[in-house]
Amino acid sequence: MDKLELIREVSRASATKIVLLVIDGLGGLPDLITGKTELEMAHTPNLDALAAKGICGLSEPIGTGITPGSAPGHLALFGYDPFACRIGRGVLEALGIDLDLKPGDIAARGNFCTLDKDGLITDRRAGRITTEKSAELCRLLDGMDIDGTKIIVCPVKEHRLVVVFRGEDLRTEISDSDPQQTGIVPENVRAKYAMAKRTADIVNKFIARARKILLEHHPANMVLLRGFSKQQQLPTMTEIYKLKPAAIASYPMYRGLAKTVGMDVLNTGATIEDELATLKQNYAGYNFFFIHIKETDSAGEDGDYNRKVSSLEHVDRVIPELIALNPDVIVVTGDHSTPAMLKGHSWHPVPVVLHSQWCRSDGVSHFSESACILGGLGRLPATDIMPLAMANALKLNKFGA
Amino acid sequence: MDKLELIREVSRASATKIVLLVIDGLGGLPDLITGKTELEMAHTPNLDALAAKGICGLSEPIGTGITPGSAPGHLALFGYDPFACRIGRGVLEALGIDLDLKPGDIAARGNFCTLDKDGLITDRRAGRITTEKSAELCRLLDGMDIDGTKIIVCPVKEHRLVVVFRGEDLRTEISDSDPQQTGIVPENVRAKYAMAKRTADIVNKFIARARKILLEHHPANMVLLRGFSKQQQLPTMTEIYKLKPAAIASYPMYRGLAKTVGMDVLNTGATIEDELATLKQNYAGYNFFFIHIKETDSAGEDGDYNRKVSSLEHVDRVIPELIALNPDVIVVTGDHSTPAMLKGHSWHPVPVVLHSQWCRSDGVSHFSESACILGGLGRLPATDIMPLAMANALKLNKFGA
Repeated sequence: MDKLELIREVSRASATKIVLLVIDGLGGLPDLITGKTELEMAHTPNLDALAAKGICGLSEPIGTGITPGSAPGHLALFGYDPFACRIGRGVLEALGIDLDLKPGDIAARGNFCTLDKDGLITDRRAGRITTEKSAELCRLLDGMDIDGTKIIVCPVKEHRLVVVFRGEDLRTEISDSDPQQTGIVPENVRAKYAMAKRTADIVNKFIARARKILLEHHPANMVLLRGFSKQQQLPTMTEIYKLKPAAIASYPMYRGLAKTVGMDVLNTGATIEDELATLKQNYAGYNFFFIHIKETDSAGEDGDYNRKVSSLEHVDRVIPELIALNPDVIVVTGDHSTPAMLKGHSWHPVPVVLHSQWCRSDGVSHFSESACILGGLGRLPATDIMPLAMANALKLNKFGA
Repeated sequence: MDKLELIREVSRASATKIVLLVIDGLGGLPDLITGKTELEMAHTPNLDALAAKGICGLSEPIGTGITPGSAPGHLALFGYDPFACRIGRGVLEALGIDLDLKPGDIAARGNFCTLDKDGLITDRRAGRITTEKSAELCRLLDGMDIDGTKIIVCPVKEHRLVVVFRGEDLRTEISDSDPQQTGIVPENVRAKYAMAKRTADIVNKFIARARKILLEHHPANMVLLRGFSKQQQLPTMTEIYKLKPAAIASYPMYRGLAKTVGMDVLNTGATIEDELATLKQNYAGYNFFFIHIKETDSAGEDGDYNRKVSSLEHVDRVIPELIALNPDVIVVTGDHSTPAMLKGHSWHPVPVVLHSQWCRSDGVSHFSESACILGGLGRLPATDIMPLAMANALKLNKFGA
């Protein structure tokens, strides 16, 4: 039986509150010099105290050995099967900028890039032009009509943009124009199946026109598109868990992800303190909060061990404010590991701590990878975290007579 | 979603090397006198050092409480679902002696046995006749044509042989003639379904003719057949993992098993030292090695605790040679437990250690059943070992956006 269907069957609405704090890229690897992971090196007295009171474990985001992208990593944390619920990059980016997709729309993630006089890509990010410049260029490209298909072009951040194709019978089975390397020309978009030929033609026409329009706008004199996708309809968290859920995230993609599972996405500032302030302001209005912290992952992606350590310490300093709100259930975990040593996401399982009045504490007193190995939750699939949080919030009825 | 399909999707070819050392029947049970398992009693400083540097756990070959045969135990280690990929004993034996099976062929594992004057089985192994004698007798039986079905008879080792039935519309749904006990007559082969009646008749005719031919060849005056099976086409390890895989195993069945998943089976001698020499000679030519060690399992099957202890110490002595090759990933585990106390395979989970630069070591410093309980891998399905090895060899791309 599908686990979510079971949860839907036994869940009940109640006033108890759950806070899920996702520290993006939380898990790490030991540094060669210190012999400690980022989390083991960080001074995190508040997270350690939470671990001592709560129950700990290691979460497997997708499966043993599998390195998760951000989307499947988060969907799993929300309790959704990350294989059944695949979300394309284009759709995620569109959702993250509050662009309402209609059924049948195809969204692509785009980059402004730089071509040299021979048409070869010299910079896939067009020197990271400002968001303002990008918005100006997007206005030049927005609103075309190609063979009856309307094209919507919106800036995201710096060189990144979203392109939405809205029309009849559009297909996602087309290849990227972004070759994800420099020194070569952008790829033609190709249909993977005959039925997608018309869509590929429309996209190629758009790209050709965009090139002409951008000709004089060096360094942003071309666009690269990838991740053509349609929005999948998922059951909402309200339908499954009977929650009133809110998301507090400053980074577009995570806001988009929260929207796909039916969360209210709250306006918030960019810092952890801003996010906590948003939580406090909206605390009365919801009974589930997903708070997303990005800076830990960014530090890991940059290979900056020290910055990841200090980001974790930064998170730790706001934990008392979170605890002061006295939520019935607090869960702190990550969507995946991002070891500075690997400069990217990794497959390593992620520390998780859950605290509630009913959690049955274990002997773990440090919030770290090595301490959590011995925690009472053991190694658990990330999709088990929401059911566990729901149970600890006394929001699940008994199964069976 | 099928895990192998996911791995196929995210795997990438690279030069990094993985060595999977399978110590057959590795796990054990505490001896009544020493209170220690074979592995706990054995002096294994090199495996202990590997455990201290690596990450440990206990592998569940098939599922909790399930005692694995050698074939499913190994298929699980190679990452294949042992339920979906069943391989008959006859097919395995045929593959192990380089007998190329054609689609539709039915292979059976055979024993020469001894019947007394009343036709009762007195020795299922015909006094373990020599391989040479067996080859001579097989030649007498080989090449028959029964109702248009050709019969191929080949010696394996000592009293063991393979019989292949090659013809139209042959079915595997037939019972064994080998009753697996003495003091009774060989069984008639029976069709489990009407459609297999013709096949059963052909096999019974072959057995009757063989009995006449062998009449004067006491102690090998009869054959017993079991495990009638057809070869299943499995995706190869190259297709799934994009590896160039090689198998180093001296025992026929494991060579056959390696062939079914597309490994190159290297020529090697019978001892552990021979196998290590083969590894060294071929190290440059492949990026995945499966090394199979049989003597531990044989000692366990014989109920010989002390011999199993010394076999484990024997394996431990070659570990430095393996480490000296500096593979990117080393995995040491077993296909199942074979406690001397039980004189056979058992359901107990099997110690596993994985070492790589990226393994995120745990606190385990001994390679044993009781130490591995507290390892960072926890209890993991054997099918997770290959994905984990692939991840540690940095051969898996990220899943999802």
